[in-house]
Amino acid sequence: MSTDPRSGESAARPARPGTGAATGTQISGLRKSDLHACLSDPMLDVMNFLNEITDRYPRAISFAPGRPHEGAFEVEDIFRHLRSYLDYLSQQGSSPARIRTMLFQYGPTAGHIRELVADSLRADEGIDVAPESIVVTVGCQEAMLLALRALFAGPRDVLLVSCPCYVGIVGAARLLGIPVRAVEERPDGIACDDLDQALQAELRQGNRPRALYVVPDYNNPSGNTMTPAVRQEVLELAERYDIAILEDSPYRLVSPGRQSPTLKAIDTGRRVVHLGSFAKSTFPGLRLGYVIADQIVTDGSGSACLLADELAKIKSMVTVNSPSVSQAIVAGILLGSGGRLSEANSRTAARYGEALQLALRQLDRHFPAARREAAGVTWNRPAGGFFLTVRVPFPADDAALARSAEQHNVIWTPMRYFFPDGRGGHNAIRLSVSALEFTEIEDGIARFAHFVDSEIGAR
Amino acid sequence: MSTDPRSGESAARPARPGTGAATGTQISGLRKSDLHACLSDPMLDVMNFLNEITDRYPRAISFAPGRPHEGAFEVEDIFRHLRSYLDYLSQQGSSPARIRTMLFQYGPTAGHIRELVADSLRADEGIDVAPESIVVTVGCQEAMLLALRALFAGPRDVLLVSCPCYVGIVGAARLLGIPVRAVEERPDGIACDDLDQALQAELRQGNRPRALYVVPDYNNPSGNTMTPAVRQEVLELAERYDIAILEDSPYRLVSPGRQSPTLKAIDTGRRVVHLGSFAKSTFPGLRLGYVIADQIVTDGSGSACLLADELAKIKSMVTVNSPSVSQAIVAGILLGSGGRLSEANSRTAARYGEALQLALRQLDRHFPAARREAAGVTWNRPAGGFFLTVRVPFPADDAALARSAEQHNVIWTPMRYFFPDGRGGHNAIRLSVSALEFTEIEDGIARFAHFVDSEIGAR
Repeated sequence: MSTDPRSGESAARPARPGTGAATGTQISGLRKSDLHACLSDPMLDVMNFLNEITDRYPRAISFAPGRPHEGAFEVEDIFRHLRSYLDYLSQQGSSPARIRTMLFQYGPTAGHIRELVADSLRADEGIDVAPESIVVTVGCQEAMLLALRALFAGPRDVLLVSCPCYVGIVGAARLLGIPVRAVEERPDGIACDDLDQALQAELRQGNRPRALYVVPDYNNPSGNTMTPAVRQEVLELAERYDIAILEDSPYRLVSPGRQSPTLKAIDTGRRVVHLGSFAKSTFPGLRLGYVIADQIVTDGSGSACLLADELAKIKSMVTVNSPSVSQAIVAGILLGSGGRLSEANSRTAARYGEALQLALRQLDRHFPAARREAAGVTWNRPAGGFFLTVRVPFPADDAALARSAEQHNVIWTPMRYFFPDGRGGHNAIRLSVSALEFTEIEDGIARFAHFVDSEIGAR
Repeated sequence: MSTDPRSGESAARPARPGTGAATGTQISGLRKSDLHACLSDPMLDVMNFLNEITDRYPRAISFAPGRPHEGAFEVEDIFRHLRSYLDYLSQQGSSPARIRTMLFQYGPTAGHIRELVADSLRADEGIDVAPESIVVTVGCQEAMLLALRALFAGPRDVLLVSCPCYVGIVGAARLLGIPVRAVEERPDGIACDDLDQALQAELRQGNRPRALYVVPDYNNPSGNTMTPAVRQEVLELAERYDIAILEDSPYRLVSPGRQSPTLKAIDTGRRVVHLGSFAKSTFPGLRLGYVIADQIVTDGSGSACLLADELAKIKSMVTVNSPSVSQAIVAGILLGSGGRLSEANSRTAARYGEALQLALRQLDRHFPAARREAAGVTWNRPAGGFFLTVRVPFPADDAALARSAEQHNVIWTPMRYFFPDGRGGHNAIRLSVSALEFTEIEDGIARFAHFVDSEIGAR
């Protein structure tokens, strides 16, 4: 393993000499320190690391990447879904010229499939919003960037994040220079006392706490889920302190069983901006997501618009609009499932559930209760999502990961990568089971147990 | 016409009462003044305006939107190009599983078609760069955002733009809080004396001029093209002042005849960051572009990477990666044209050239030389691109546009929209001919001439 596993392979690749015609002097202001500060933030490297580490150890079993399983993907489905949406438009009375324009031209900034998305949110999630309050985005990542850009106006506007925390939200905040404060996650979500104290601390310092980012269901990276009681408390606290909640919940539709209501579904005060992803419920390659922003924005003159309209304006300066072919394919998938992604994903969700259960059974087997306790190894038991947390009695750092990959052929993610201030997760590990075959999970947990044993034995 | 033609229709649409369950109190910090300042900048509304004004006056002939003509678009081509790339990968030895992964999964942040893009840049543009120095982006707009974010580190880093100026670059700068300074464009590009003075002024104020943004070929909005001599001067000046050049040139491959070399092709000092678009050379709905950033970034420790690697890191926090299906379709188009988009577009380019010539002939006809001079109406004569500039002896403002649309059934864009500080273009009009049929251009210029006559007569 190279010295820093978070630096992606591409970042380490030198310029090919002789290609390009570099004979003069280049811009001298290209020392790293001359570039924007976000580029020196280790959190920006985490995503590259997660995407690329698996390639670096081809023989290792990797619990690192949070990718979907590919078993249900069929190349011909892409053609089929695209065709079925075009047929649908035709049946609905769209002329060939209009369909052509929809596919080929610049489209509406907020997307051309908002009605279908609104219908599916009603059917799948009990989220009842007007299509006008939705902006279709280039993945959930763009949705985060848009919401942050609109809501955070000045240097004293602070973002609170439940930690360990998805790196994408911190990265987007870093790009925009938004200060981020971590509030530690608990097994049942977030402790409202912690949140209350964090909010008080910001106010004492003269800051404006502006929003709280949470992944209430099967959090990436921890796997923890917020209980219904905590959801209600978080909403009440948000109302008391007048902050927005940025809710991100990509795993619900690919998890087995019934889910708790989203914060948005029980949001009676339009306090929640819901960040949506199609990466797991359809597929990541489409790069499609959405944001629900049904809040009303007023100006001094008495006119009003939706926050979604403001987000669309920002989007026009980020990606102009979302790719039409990706939108058409999502529309085809929605139509093919009767508008319910939960039904389209029922078998997939069951499979992910089995993968998690298998991993948990294997952990039980390799660390029986008595041994587990003696060794100080514990883990949580998520019923859905892609991830679980294992706590270990040694530093789960880059050096440990290097030993794990090289000596035990198994890869995982240090939980410390998911703490924006670097202060947390030192003894915790994220295991992602989503992309693996069942035999790989069995073998992988066995290898992981050997790795843990050898770390403990070495102490 | 509503009071402000730059506010898009969607922004004016009120929230639908009764949809959604808004019974509590929403976040109170949602006055416009509580949101980010960029949302109060009129330039962010221009793109929406351009996309939507045509819908508002369905019977008017619109010289407003800078959209491609749709005559050459065939829906079945999308299926065909996608299929041809998949077949190519298969012939190249990619396994079905690997092709599936490429289409469905998260992909490399910088794109999976970089080799093909690098080949086409060599064939079409004489730009010889390693694939590693390219990042495939979600349209040229994302390329702008990435380049600005990386290069602009502090509040004293200033962006110079040649004006009138594409609104996308100013919008992206506004999102990131980057100060923008306008340098007036001349018929032959930019006057290096003006640029020199602007740079001196920034330095005197203690600022760091960091980059100059230009559209050297058939500028949007003016239609003007930088002469080869000016290109050389701009590069020399950039070297002298140690600034980067952001070169954006989307119209070259859809313009007739031979083009001057891009700044990037004659950039011996790796001083140019080239912002690429496939919106005109393939089609806008794909939302695909790229950035060439072959500059070498060093850090204190002696290690180095390409600026492209840093841009990819930022991209991972904006859109994660570009949509795989869009990339595959562009790849199919590249393969189908023998790697030359100039050849794939030769008929399209000829058509755009004819459309421009027709518009110019019609202007000549309606404003013969003597009348033109007496009235004080002038225009430039672009040989390519989508746009031309008409100067008129009256304020070409929103009120004039409203009269033009309502009384003469013809729409155009006030040039003042393209000056970031609002100080310029007061007597100029952008006419875009790209999307119109030839008969519409004929009728439209006749209507436009009537409008101009009536404005002059009314004075």
